[in-house]
Amino acid sequence: MPETTKDRIVDASAELFQLQGYAGTGMRQIVARASAPFGSIYHHFPGGKEELGAETIRVSGALYLQLLDLFLDPAPDVVTGVEEFFAGAAVTLRESDYAEGCPIATVALEVASTSEPLRAATAEVFDSWIDAAAARFADAGLDAATARALAIGTIAGLEGAFVLCRALRSTEPMEVAGAVAVAQLRAALG
Amino acid sequence: MPETTKDRIVDASAELFQLQGYAGTGMRQIVARASAPFGSIYHHFPGGKEELGAETIRVSGALYLQLLDLFLDPAPDVVTGVEEFFAGAAVTLRESDYAEGCPIATVALEVASTSEPLRAATAEVFDSWIDAAAARFADAGLDAATARALAIGTIAGLEGAFVLCRALRSTEPMEVAGAVAVAQLRAALG
Repeated sequence: MPETTKDRIVDASAELFQLQGYAGTGMRQIVARASAPFGSIYHHFPGGKEELGAETIRVSGALYLQLLDLFLDPAPDVVTGVEEFFAGAAVTLRESDYAEGCPIATVALEVASTSEPLRAATAEVFDSWIDAAAARFADAGLDAATARALAIGTIAGLEGAFVLCRALRSTEPMEVAGAVAVAQLRAALG
Repeated sequence: MPETTKDRIVDASAELFQLQGYAGTGMRQIVARASAPFGSIYHHFPGGKEELGAETIRVSGALYLQLLDLFLDPAPDVVTGVEEFFAGAAVTLRESDYAEGCPIATVALEVASTSEPLRAATAEVFDSWIDAAAARFADAGLDAATARALAIGTIAGLEGAFVLCRALRSTEPMEVAGAVAVAQLRAALG
């Protein structure tokens, strides 16, 4: 399917929000990057920046969730899959010159106390990631409570590593967080 | 010592940056919160918002570092100290209605790819936290490499938990991240 103007606007927002945050990104900058006429943004998002922000968070969150399948489906086991997910995150950080981390974390921190609709959108995305990772861990034989705790611990480690890696311009925190996640998962699987 | 105008400006910036980010905070808002005349901000920070931002990051980072001593000095052992640090973070999140997390993470993600002086300031702070935590773990008997990895893993878990807790309005991620940090530390100490 060819990309619509609306798709291009959301893609441009996702790139800019990840790079410079929600507050630091202007509507004019978004339409310029999307090669869209200025009016089109309000045609597709009558609620303005907040409506576009919520849609961007949901789309970015769903795309990132697909990476879980991309790494875990071909892996011989869940431990190897998690190991490769963290290794992939380190490669992306390095290759993007530390610009590409979590697609929604910057916005999540900016809006947590300033916009309830946007906060709710980020919560929805994080919940979907936690549920998907927990389902993978449960499939590997863990009980629901253990699987959920491991999912939350793994995603927290990943998110924190993105913060540290981007600030320090080093993949060391991602390597450490990956090793911690793998150790926790191995210990739980026995 | 009585607080100077400069101190009040930095305190106001720290509060606003944590609550709504760097890009979302205007200079007029900062002087209003600091009850300072508008001109005073450029008198104390001739480099403008970026200079004020770097100073705020350094001051906030140093204050947060003091919490490590506050929790670890009275603790009977380093494991209990780390446990209580995470428990304290959960209490702060709940009592602040999920507004108070990491004092510099929002800014760190916003500036990582947009301002080299501000990124460098956040890196300096994170490095100081990693070094201080690693020194505590080395004092408990661990070799330097293990102590550093544990410090990075613990801080990554804390940072990621702040992101998830603020978005989800739940302390569950902080409880999980604390349990992971304690398990890793216990395993390393043998």
